[in-house]
Amino acid sequence: VNVLVIGGGSWGSVFSTLARDRGHAVTLACRDPAQAAAIAATARNPRYLRDVDLSGIEVTTVEGAPAADADLVAIAVPSRSFAEAVRGLPGTCPVLVLSKGLDPGGGRRLSELVEERPVAVLSGPNHAEEIALQLPAASVVASADLELAIALQHALVSQVFRVYASDDVVGVELCAATKNVIALAAGGVDGLGLGDNAKAGLISRGLRELARLGGACGARPETFSGLAGMGDLIVTCWSRHSRNRRAGELLVRGLTPEQALAEIGMTVEGLTTAPVVRDLARGLGIELPITEAVCLVLEGTAPLGLVSSLMAREPTTE
Amino acid sequence: VNVLVIGGGSWGSVFSTLARDRGHAVTLACRDPAQAAAIAATARNPRYLRDVDLSGIEVTTVEGAPAADADLVAIAVPSRSFAEAVRGLPGTCPVLVLSKGLDPGGGRRLSELVEERPVAVLSGPNHAEEIALQLPAASVVASADLELAIALQHALVSQVFRVYASDDVVGVELCAATKNVIALAAGGVDGLGLGDNAKAGLISRGLRELARLGGACGARPETFSGLAGMGDLIVTCWSRHSRNRRAGELLVRGLTPEQALAEIGMTVEGLTTAPVVRDLARGLGIELPITEAVCLVLEGTAPLGLVSSLMAREPTTE
Repeated sequence: VNVLVIGGGSWGSVFSTLARDRGHAVTLACRDPAQAAAIAATARNPRYLRDVDLSGIEVTTVEGAPAADADLVAIAVPSRSFAEAVRGLPGTCPVLVLSKGLDPGGGRRLSELVEERPVAVLSGPNHAEEIALQLPAASVVASADLELAIALQHALVSQVFRVYASDDVVGVELCAATKNVIALAAGGVDGLGLGDNAKAGLISRGLRELARLGGACGARPETFSGLAGMGDLIVTCWSRHSRNRRAGELLVRGLTPEQALAEIGMTVEGLTTAPVVRDLARGLGIELPITEAVCLVLEGTAPLGLVSSLMAREPTTE
Repeated sequence: VNVLVIGGGSWGSVFSTLARDRGHAVTLACRDPAQAAAIAATARNPRYLRDVDLSGIEVTTVEGAPAADADLVAIAVPSRSFAEAVRGLPGTCPVLVLSKGLDPGGGRRLSELVEERPVAVLSGPNHAEEIALQLPAASVVASADLELAIALQHALVSQVFRVYASDDVVGVELCAATKNVIALAAGGVDGLGLGDNAKAGLISRGLRELARLGGACGARPETFSGLAGMGDLIVTCWSRHSRNRRAGELLVRGLTPEQALAEIGMTVEGLTTAPVVRDLARGLGIELPITEAVCLVLEGTAPLGLVSSLMAREPTTE
């Protein structure tokens, strides 16, 4: 199978090695020509995960990418660049969405931006840093066409990467996008020193509110309690590799979103996604107390008072 | 309200302070008379969480406990001692189960051992060490009688302890008992150095298998993705306070269950619960691959081969 991976960030690079190791012919297309040249020369990504051996992977620029010859195009660019990456993409082969987020220009799920060709999404607790070390991980591939999901599952599954198939593309994609908002809040709990109980409580209630939003969008609740939901959420909220968690920690210590971004030096999807999720929920008439609180912090409200208001909400049933 | 708490361990002690701080008249009954005497003399528990101020709480032995005068009896003894603690308990007031586990003599839920009086259970991500520091936490109180659950919710809720009511006593109780088995496995992942992706994947699939067992026992799936399920599970699997996680880590490093117990020096519920859960599931014809693997490790099987077999299972849908 000819696999074209668009986006030479850490996940695009490591996903390329997973596909290569399953015997596929992989081309990695970088948006930055200098980066493409460096990888072609050294078989290493000069910017991300330098220890990962990219030999055996063709490297090109996005402009020169052989999209028309691919059997699968996997896209791993930041969500704000996704629309541009799929616009005018040649060929008719399936697209696999590796990016996590919502389109900032309207809040659509990224797979909705893929027009007139089959589309699937891959998501789960998959920090690239660990997959690069060949540590075991599990993930979900979802498509409205379950047969496509199962075909991709079989094309990607290996002894170190266990893939589950799902037809709940709405749920998997909403999990991937919205969990970063809860991760910002979890980072806030860390930054305020509120402890593990508080963080686990926040994550559980956060997942419940995301599942409520998902339900209104046609997703299945059990997707939110699976690998793409809970699994990815807890690793994002607990792992030292998580940029969104780290950003939340910096925000409650008084940094602005811009300063937090500068400190982290990589894309922090939750900062873009939080207001998009909030507006989507408001439009649907769904209450998301944790997401609303995150947006208030992004707008400069002091976080401690928000914790008190969340704790003081009218007691309810679970 | 007169509250009698039976069991002077860390959770019994800290729960007593939560009830006291809500204005209830609290008596703490210790199984060890020397411990009761020490607390009465110093207002400190000599064995657990010595910094917690127990002043204002009456202390007695279990034999001398004024159970007949109580409006609520909360029981926080290890699960293997629960049957003895409720046997012949005077009075007719409701019992609140704080213990987490299954009765080793038959695998019944602990609330099933409470006969002919109203019963509720309290469970959630509530490490006593953090609640002792007045850090915020959330929990679920469940009873088949939702009105009792709501009454207890209102009796216990505070600015630092947010309580949700539920009528799914089966689900909450099974979550509390079975999560320790998954925590042992998560500790194993830590001990083997498999990383956060693997641990989050294991936890998600572990919760899925527990929910399957719960469903067969009449529990609701959403309980497993809530505070008492996922919430408690993630704090148990990630917190440095968790004894079950720690025990799993020691087991994969080659200690026997007895040696791990000795090293930890406190009850490790998962060691008792794992075979009980396995037998319960087998009796119901339900497949629990992670629980089975945990039991094999407890019986001496080398853990690394089990990880490979879990990863190599036939790919499936989520």
